This record gives sequence, structure tokens and C-alpha cells, in this order.
Amino acid sequence: MYDASLNTPRAEIEARIAALQRVLARRGVDAALILQKSDLFYFSGTIQQAVLWVPADGRPVLMVNRSLERARAESAIERVVPLPSPSRIPSILKEAGLKAAGRLGFELDVLPVALFRRYREIFGAETLDVSTDIRLIRAVKSAFEIDLIREAARRSDQVAALLPGMIRPGMTEIELAGRVEAEARRLGHQGIVRMRLWGGELFYGHLLAGPSGGVPSYQASPTGGSGINPAVAQGAGSRVIGRHEPIVLDYVFAWRGYISDHTRLFSLGPVADDLQAAHAAMLELQEEIRRRAVPGAVSGGLYDLALDWVQRRGYADHFMGASEERVRFVGHGVGLELDEFPFLNAGQTLPLATGMVIALEPKLIFPGRGVVGIENTHVVTPAGLEQLGRYPGEITVI
Amino acid sequence: MYDASLNTPRAEIEARIAALQRVLARRGVDAALILQKSDLFYFSGTIQQAVLWVPADGRPVLMVNRSLERARAESAIERVVPLPSPSRIPSILKEAGLKAAGRLGFELDVLPVALFRRYREIFGAETLDVSTDIRLIRAVKSAFEIDLIREAARRSDQVAALLPGMIRPGMTEIELAGRVEAEARRLGHQGIVRMRLWGGELFYGHLLAGPSGGVPSYQASPTGGSGINPAVAQGAGSRVIGRHEPIVLDYVFAWRGYISDHTRLFSLGPVADDLQAAHAAMLELQEEIRRRAVPGAVSGGLYDLALDWVQRRGYADHFMGASEERVRFVGHGVGLELDEFPFLNAGQTLPLATGMVIALEPKLIFPGRGVVGIENTHVVTPAGLEQLGRYPGEITVI
Repeated sequence: MYDASLNTPRAEIEARIAALQRVLARRGVDAALILQKSDLFYFSGTIQQAVLWVPADGRPVLMVNRSLERARAESAIERVVPLPSPSRIPSILKEAGLKAAGRLGFELDVLPVALFRRYREIFGAETLDVSTDIRLIRAVKSAFEIDLIREAARRSDQVAALLPGMIRPGMTEIELAGRVEAEARRLGHQGIVRMRLWGGELFYGHLLAGPSGGVPSYQASPTGGSGINPAVAQGAGSRVIGRHEPIVLDYVFAWRGYISDHTRLFSLGPVADDLQAAHAAMLELQEEIRRRAVPGAVSGGLYDLALDWVQRRGYADHFMGASEERVRFVGHGVGLELDEFPFLNAGQTLPLATGMVIALEPKLIFPGRGVVGIENTHVVTPAGLEQLGRYPGEITVI
Repeated sequence: MYDASLNTPRAEIEARIAALQRVLARRGVDAALILQKSDLFYFSGTIQQAVLWVPADGRPVLMVNRSLERARAESAIERVVPLPSPSRIPSILKEAGLKAAGRLGFELDVLPVALFRRYREIFGAETLDVSTDIRLIRAVKSAFEIDLIREAARRSDQVAALLPGMIRPGMTEIELAGRVEAEARRLGHQGIVRMRLWGGELFYGHLLAGPSGGVPSYQASPTGGSGINPAVAQGAGSRVIGRHEPIVLDYVFAWRGYISDHTRLFSLGPVADDLQAAHAAMLELQEEIRRRAVPGAVSGGLYDLALDWVQRRGYADHFMGASEERVRFVGHGVGLELDEFPFLNAGQTLPLATGMVIALEPKLIFPGRGVVGIENTHVVTPAGLEQLGRYPGEITVI
């Protein structure tokens, strides 16, 4: 039942483990205990109920609660052993001939307190936070990962291309969303979209028409949408899609774990000239940032550049949110999670590096009227950003 | 843009806050800081980026980062104030005339370590875990909540009733899943299904045919399914649905935050007689448990009863998973989250109470062949469990 062709290749896993081991050695950390699902998948190739022990020096051990059979079928980690209970980890490591860690790294940005306390008690070691180290490693993608993201972006394009044929007069946002999502599933969308930030969540993304596009988000996102209820408070709502209003399809395609984040605009009949002009401006800004986003460019500097550009064009009050509801970024890394390094946020100092993958999303919000703009997933190359999505950036008038 | 008719009524919020305050007073905790999304929604009626301060004595304060306007529109909490940064909480409380907490409660089962450390530094108070207290309060539903779950179950029935008309020969699990999900969206499914357990996740649920129904889960679930890739490792996969195999639709309907968990079986042409008999046995077992699940019954005792029953019928090796892959439960509480108290698990001592809502899911797994059984969301009443789903429990032969 497990298709081995979908497994993460051994060479990938080995390179990722080696990168983590270099950081552990440099920081003087004896081992890292990988527990979080996205990190576990990245370093082991499986998300089965398991913990991955990565010593600074030596071979990793994948200890599996369930399903052992499946973890063995999926993971390129050589040592895969059963784990009846977390309390057994020290004895398992001892039997494997591994020495206990004096300094042990955890993913403290995501690990819940109660669980951390349990593990701390089991090990009695000095504990350190290695989450930033892990996020920095994951930020630079391999050729294998970029190929998967390229496939995801190709499917984002396919989904966008299907929307005009699915929309009908009188349809609500959520009804159209359901139809679009059914096509995404047919194309292999995995459904689940992971975010690292605690409390962050997304269901495909935001399909919003007209005024819905101007409803702010509780998350760090330029759009929110009213959503179908206050319990989710984002995404498609029960409003009927009108004519001449911008319809935004800001949807993630998640393919074999990897994310393409992609926004395109549609309308039933043309939108007003000023919105049309605003949209064209965002396409220009995308081009502008793309050229400057070369390896070594500072992530926060690209936001400053964008802000300066929209100020000169008179769009500052609408950029990435209206007035006090604005968010202070213009892009974010994507990979196994939607919120990866680098963040093109005000004040961020992380420089871009070749192989980083960035969803760049310059947008303008007009309260009561909607959102315009673009989003594409890009790879950082020495020549600037390579755009992966190919569906035309102009508003598709239906 | 915010539909006030969808708001949680003031009387609900007041009763919930009062219940929490009684527990805080009893435990000698001065205040609780509510941060997790489901808890925040339960106690305030909004999931906007906010923290809710609940003193053991006095009125709660909702401090909102974003969107303030939306939180004010949605929440029945009277004191809603802006929160530029968590470090400002103590001064905001002081300005509101509230005294500092010497003993402060947190949701330590879910709160990440790094975030907890930041809050601990801000308050300098003794910190306690109030997560179990909160979960016990949330376990007993109000009439308002039961009505919403009833609505969710009604929609689960509608989705099940649509499946026979959507399946076509040659269709893959994921293609059928997409179509079913589109209908669920049209009926108002919110998409996002929340789980409390760290690393727990679900995308609608499991639509599995034949052998897929026998693939174990990494989660505490009788079924897993191969899934579309190892990065999600559950749910519908790319296998073509065959004739005469059990097709399980184990899907959640999430309506205004609240969950109905619902399983029905279908097949293209009848399944083998032994599977048919096994399915009928699970309907009988559901009936058996239902009668015994009265207020005061011990949750773990209901699992023991089920296990004893399947042992006598010769189904023990298939119950809730095949041999060593089995999970040791037969039901779980549902509400805003899929994994609420009570758990009908081996060893659980929590007694049932009137108003608890339980998804009861007796199932039998036959590796290589599939899963049979039933799941319904029920309300605990003095007469036993009241079943909310109405779609026939027998296998629907198409």
C-alpha cells in the first residue's frame, strides 16, 4: 500500500542529517530530538508517530510508536526501532551503543510545555532550542525539493486555469471554493497545509470576491475574508459573487508535502479602471522586487524597497492591508510549511541565498471593494527570482 | 461583513466564564490567560489574534492584536482593548484596575515552550497548568452547543446521502473525496477541523475503499489509509475504487466551529458475506454501548464492555485495528475539537455526564480487505446516548 516512488531519496535524507549535525557540532549540542511533524518528515521522510534522535556525531535513530511497518517502508533512516513509550528512549539509545546527551536540542518554538517537561524528565540533560537552526537549514531547498515545488506550482496554474469554467452567476464564494477544491484534489492536492506558527492555520487559502477581499485577517496575511463563520474567520464566505468585482484566488497547492502559494485575479466583466491600474502596478512591483532579490540581498530590505515604491506611486495606504490593518511584509519562504524562512518583513536581516524559495505577494487592499495583486512562488537564483507559476498575471475577465 | 447572527450569545459566554472562574477560585489560581484558538473561541466567541484574561474574581478582559474591529463585532466580552504587544499586558490590566496575578494559569498542554517563557517573563508569576480544568468544562455541552452539533450531524447525513450519486466506475479515492468535499462546502462546512493533540491533524477524514481501509494510522485512529503521499499519510489515496469492496466515508462535518464525526459504509455491488456480518455486528455493538453509556458510567468501562463483547463474538483480532496495530478505544468526545473529553479508552476513569457529546465508532479492520463499522455523534442523556446522525447504518449498496 506504500508507493516507494513517493519516498524521499536516501541522498536527500543523508544531506539533511549531515547539515543538522554540522550545526549541532558547531553549537556544542550533543544531539537533537526531532519531534515536530514537518521537521520529522524533512529529516526522516516519514510522519509516522516517531521521534528522531540525531547525534552530533554518528548515525541517527528513528524510534517509532506507530506504524513501525510504515515508517520502515517510507524512511531512508537505516536504524528504525520500535518505541513502546517515550520513557524507553534512553535505554533504546544505550542498547544502540549511543552515549547519553549532556546537551540536548529541542524544537522549543513549537513543542508544548507539558510534552517538553516530560522529555526533560526522561533525559535529565541540559536543554537547548535548535528550532532556528532547523529552520535555517530548511530554508535552502535542494534540487529535489525545488522540483517538487515546481510541480506544485504547475498544479496551481492548472487550478487557476479551471476557475473561469467553474464559476456560475449567483454562486457563493464557498460554493465556488468547493468546486475549485474538488479539482485541486483530483490533481493530487494533499489537502493539509501546514504552518509552523502556533495558532496559524489555512484551509487551501482565500477565495474572496469584492468586499470580502477587504476584510482584514487575524493572521499575518494581507487578506482574511469574512469566512463562513467566526470560528474560522477567514476564507470563502456565504456572499454571492457579483459582477465587476475582483475575485481573488489565493490558494496553496500542496504536492508531496511541498507548497506553492499562488494568487490570481478574476472578474465577471471588467473591474473599475482604478482597480485595474492598481493591479497593473502590483505586477510592476513584482518585477521590480524580483530583479533585486539576488543572493545576499537582505530580506527586510526588499520590504523597504517595496514600501518605498508604493509610497512613490501613491498606494501606501493600501499596501498589504488598509491603513492600520496592514501587515508589514511582502513575501515569505515556503516549503513543507507555509511560513518558512526567509520573511520579507520590515526589519528582517536574513540575507537571501541561492535555493531559497519565496512566495512574493504584492497586494493592494481597497476596503469595501476588494483586493488586487499577484502572488507567485519563486526560487532565488544568482540572476534574481525565478518565477515558478506560469498562468498569466493579468486579471482574467470572464 | 460580520454576520452577528453567527455570534456566540452573551449568556453562553457568561456561563462559560463563570464555570472557569469557579475552578480558578477552587484551585486558588488568581487568573487564567487564554491563548489557544479553540479555548479562546469557547470563552470569548472570537479567534482574532488576542489573549483573554480571566480573573478568578471580576470581569474578563479581551486584549486584541488584530483585528480589533472584528473581535469587537464578534465577542460578547464587554471589555475589549487593543494589544500592541504581549509585553503591554501588565500595564493594560493595571489601567483596567485589575490586580496582578500571583498564581497564573496557562494551557500548558498546547502552549509552545518559547511562547510560554516569554509570557512567564512578562508576568513573573507562579504558573500553573489549567488545561485539564478547561477541557473538563468544555466536555459538557450547553443546549446551544448541542443544537449546533445537531446541525452538523444533519449535514453529515446529507453528505452521506449524496455519495451514491457522485461515485463513478474507475474513480480514485481522492477524486471521489474531492467531489464529496465540494458538496460539504456547499452545505457550509468550514473546512478546518481542529485537534488539540500536538501533531494531530485531519483533512475532513478518511474516504477509503477496500484494502486502503486496512492501512493503519500514525494517529490514534482505527483507520489511516495510505493517503496521497507519505507527507500526509492518511485519508484518500490514488487507488481506483473497486467493486464489492467496503467504501468507508468517515468524515467530519464542522459547522460554526462544532464537529459531527460520522462514518457510513458504501459498496459498488455487495461486499462478501463475512464483511456484511461483521458490519451488522458493529451496529449491534453500537446499540449495546449506547444503552450502557448513561451519566455516571465510567468511560474506560465502556471500552472494556466493547472489548468483552467482540471477544465473545470472535472479532477481537479485528477490533479498532488489526492485531498489534489496534488502538484501545471505541469513542471520543467532540465539540470545537475532534479530540475532546471523554475518551472511551482503556483505563480512562472519567465518568460520563449529561450533556457530554461522544463520537462512538465501533469498527473492525480486515487487512487487505478493508474496514466495516459505524460512527455517530451522540449526546449523553439520562436514558443513554441519543444518536444525532440519521442516515441508515447499513451498508448502502450502489
